[in-house]
Amino acid sequence: MTVSVDHLTLPAVWLRDNCRCPECADPRSGQKLFGIADLPADLAVAAAHDDGTTVTVTFAPDGHVSTFARDWLLAPAAPDERTEDGKEFGAGLTTLSWPDFRADRTAALDALLRRGGVLLRGVPTADRTVLDVARGFGYVRETNYGTLFEVRVEENPTNLAFTGREIAPHTDNPYRDPVPTVQLLHCLVAAPEGTGGDSGLVDGFAAAALLRAEDPAAFAVLAGTPVTFRYADPDTDLSASRPLIGLDPRGRIREVRFNNRSARPLRAPHAELVAFYAAYRTFAGIIARPDLRLDFRLVPGDCLVFDNTRMLHARTAFTESAARHLQGCYADLDAVASDLAVLRRRTPVDTLADLFAGAGAADYLGEDVTQAVHMLQAATLAEAAGAPDTLVAAALLHDVGHLTGAVSGADLMAGTDNRHSHAGADWLGRWFPVAVTDPVRLHVAAKRYLCAVEPDYLGRLSAASVYTLGVQGGPMGPGEVADFAAEPYAAEAVALRRWDDAAKDPAAPTRDFAHFRPVLERVLRF
Amino acid sequence: MTVSVDHLTLPAVWLRDNCRCPECADPRSGQKLFGIADLPADLAVAAAHDDGTTVTVTFAPDGHVSTFARDWLLAPAAPDERTEDGKEFGAGLTTLSWPDFRADRTAALDALLRRGGVLLRGVPTADRTVLDVARGFGYVRETNYGTLFEVRVEENPTNLAFTGREIAPHTDNPYRDPVPTVQLLHCLVAAPEGTGGDSGLVDGFAAAALLRAEDPAAFAVLAGTPVTFRYADPDTDLSASRPLIGLDPRGRIREVRFNNRSARPLRAPHAELVAFYAAYRTFAGIIARPDLRLDFRLVPGDCLVFDNTRMLHARTAFTESAARHLQGCYADLDAVASDLAVLRRRTPVDTLADLFAGAGAADYLGEDVTQAVHMLQAATLAEAAGAPDTLVAAALLHDVGHLTGAVSGADLMAGTDNRHSHAGADWLGRWFPVAVTDPVRLHVAAKRYLCAVEPDYLGRLSAASVYTLGVQGGPMGPGEVADFAAEPYAAEAVALRRWDDAAKDPAAPTRDFAHFRPVLERVLRF
Repeated sequence: MTVSVDHLTLPAVWLRDNCRCPECADPRSGQKLFGIADLPADLAVAAAHDDGTTVTVTFAPDGHVSTFARDWLLAPAAPDERTEDGKEFGAGLTTLSWPDFRADRTAALDALLRRGGVLLRGVPTADRTVLDVARGFGYVRETNYGTLFEVRVEENPTNLAFTGREIAPHTDNPYRDPVPTVQLLHCLVAAPEGTGGDSGLVDGFAAAALLRAEDPAAFAVLAGTPVTFRYADPDTDLSASRPLIGLDPRGRIREVRFNNRSARPLRAPHAELVAFYAAYRTFAGIIARPDLRLDFRLVPGDCLVFDNTRMLHARTAFTESAARHLQGCYADLDAVASDLAVLRRRTPVDTLADLFAGAGAADYLGEDVTQAVHMLQAATLAEAAGAPDTLVAAALLHDVGHLTGAVSGADLMAGTDNRHSHAGADWLGRWFPVAVTDPVRLHVAAKRYLCAVEPDYLGRLSAASVYTLGVQGGPMGPGEVADFAAEPYAAEAVALRRWDDAAKDPAAPTRDFAHFRPVLERVLRF
Repeated sequence: MTVSVDHLTLPAVWLRDNCRCPECADPRSGQKLFGIADLPADLAVAAAHDDGTTVTVTFAPDGHVSTFARDWLLAPAAPDERTEDGKEFGAGLTTLSWPDFRADRTAALDALLRRGGVLLRGVPTADRTVLDVARGFGYVRETNYGTLFEVRVEENPTNLAFTGREIAPHTDNPYRDPVPTVQLLHCLVAAPEGTGGDSGLVDGFAAAALLRAEDPAAFAVLAGTPVTFRYADPDTDLSASRPLIGLDPRGRIREVRFNNRSARPLRAPHAELVAFYAAYRTFAGIIARPDLRLDFRLVPGDCLVFDNTRMLHARTAFTESAARHLQGCYADLDAVASDLAVLRRRTPVDTLADLFAGAGAADYLGEDVTQAVHMLQAATLAEAAGAPDTLVAAALLHDVGHLTGAVSGADLMAGTDNRHSHAGADWLGRWFPVAVTDPVRLHVAAKRYLCAVEPDYLGRLSAASVYTLGVQGGPMGPGEVADFAAEPYAAEAVALRRWDDAAKDPAAPTRDFAHFRPVLERVLRF
């Protein structure tokens, strides 16, 4: 038995491997607590229930139960940021001022990841500042060239970069594996105007995509032929064998290595050599097209940051007596992508705001207010009563289980206990402390408790609340009453319950969600 | 027109791309001075000459001339060290003491590259020493975990590594791209005996090779399916999509990523999911085989260093109250391979010693001494005469062209001028200054010169030398005499010639090669 959700059919092992229950995944780190071989070899789906929001699966032979949000099951695969899928071709060079970069790195990180590079202007020209800039893009990759390398004319150059020669478009360090994925070049001194030393960038992904479109056979040859690159000096002997165009297993372009300077002889049968060189020349011809190249002149204070797996960089020749001086370093894209994701991470408060504006705008189970207004009223009452932040937050979020949880409010009205209090508390537990989640968890129990201990309480409930009381178990018996009273947050749950019961008045004053944002932010676990 | 050498046929563009003349390749760095598109589009071979040692090629349309050592043209491709080709499967864990490692890192670097790991014992247990150890293996890769990470039980662990749980065999940081290729784990405090915390390593390359042999379809599925791995905490959001088994374009295994903890849901059609999970489980079953796993217990002072693209590491559970404490860091294999190549780089003197012991032990063209003894005698005579180091070296090496050069000595005796003096000088020019190479180059000319200017010289030559004089051009004419005398090293060449002529006495005192090693080392260009 498999599980089908709309047009998607999911095998038992996929479902079990993606179970997020606390037994299967560490609640704090999200890391899975089992290996694939730990799952029963004869794992099967014994039962599955799809309520339109949540899919609950019971597995054989061990009876494990997993629940999945239906939307999550149906989510599409995310694009792979490190292939051409995630890249915008043909865009110009994003330029940002140093103060703007320091105020918000988001645009710079995004340009580096999606457009291949970014130019920062007005960076202080103090010695070694490039290392500070690099910290804004991740971690410096130390190599045999040091943490920082100087690009200027040297008397006994071990590398052509340290001469005044023209350097044709190339990627750096193709002889290194793993290759540095980010390069920074910070201009401290420019060659005088008219003496050369201009810079250029070529989008290697765009060039490779053009090659694939125009000459698929040449593309296949370059993607299929490992080329050995080597760099040696008295202290170093680096070599790596990689194709000029690196593909992922799906055939998507994810890396370009292009550097004839350090390419070693290709050893292969004659026909392969002929095919390789024809393809290599064709690719070089595309790379040389002016429309793929961006030319610019670095001036002191400019710091060029680019994706060394994608962008080829170049410079024109310059007079060797010129004092042109750049400082460079390497870093890696993984930290760039991580920082960008964190900068863009939606806070839990953003997620809750969306819930209030979205599902929360629906009718509230036969009451005269929407679910969102009901919760906002409860929080307004809690705040007016001088409740602590945690309890105001609990009042604001007490019915969030209706919006996210197992069974819809409509199901509850149709006679199914949706346990919305527990589902909501569990969901909130990712972000909020128990002082918020326990009053939420207990607010349905508090109704049953109050019915048992306050003879006139039941009479004050709304018709809908009386109806659901039956579904939820009716008034508590004496043993349940004692158990409830012993809960650490019983008093808070009772207070929350009274605001809940009062928060169904379309005419009552109601603060909006924005008003409660600071309260939520103060009580977030981190 | 192509060029054929034995069974090898080489296209014009291959030959030209590999020309090492000073116009094509920077003599100092060896880097090529042109891009592939800089070569004439209609490049062709106009003429080629193969003299049995050197192949000389003249190109159309520009008349450029390239020379290649025949042996170099015929050299096979080097194996790719970063694939399974370069790996020794099934070897145990190489163990070295800290003092041995400090004295010579060669064995440790070799074990890490070829066998997947090395265990150093007796490393000082001072805080952060692992960073010093890492410097012996390249450069520390800083990550979001810092330059160094602590592996011990934490109160609020963001990673399962920081608990007492069992950790099944896995590779680290699969969510990082580029992934760290080397990991170091330095034991400062072990869990007490009997409380768990043992370590294990599994050879992932061996496991993948077994999978390919036993279930090629499963192997193809895992190599062809990118899996997304992710790690997130409040400051970090890393993700990478890569197959569990990474292949190079030739289909060779070059990377294993195996870590269910951080694998994200695979989104694919049902049939692909079924195939993937079946293959994944089969691979996990191979990884779990006891014969692929090496179990050991790290004690304080042990530092385990392993290839994180190949070896899966594991630990058994341990009592959380135990004080077990490791410090770890990451580094990269490229620097490991570079350091090993430099450590193993044969010096020119080693190469010459091999020549003397090998080819030099052959008969010397009809004389009573071997070629090696002949050259050693010449050097012994030069040294006794008080010659400078450069000239002693020239005397020692003057006939090296017979051993390495164009035509064999036997060919010379059969009537072909092997130009052994020029060939030898050219070969030595890679390492030695002109004060060594020019006397070598001129020592045959010096014989022809002396025959012309010293009437009784010819009579003192050996029979073999008189015979070869004819092949070499006979006594010089007056114009040649003047040209020779004008050579900057003519006097040195004549002195060398006289030692050469005298160095054919089986009874004469002869210093061995080891005696002359320091002389050669003093005169090496670097």
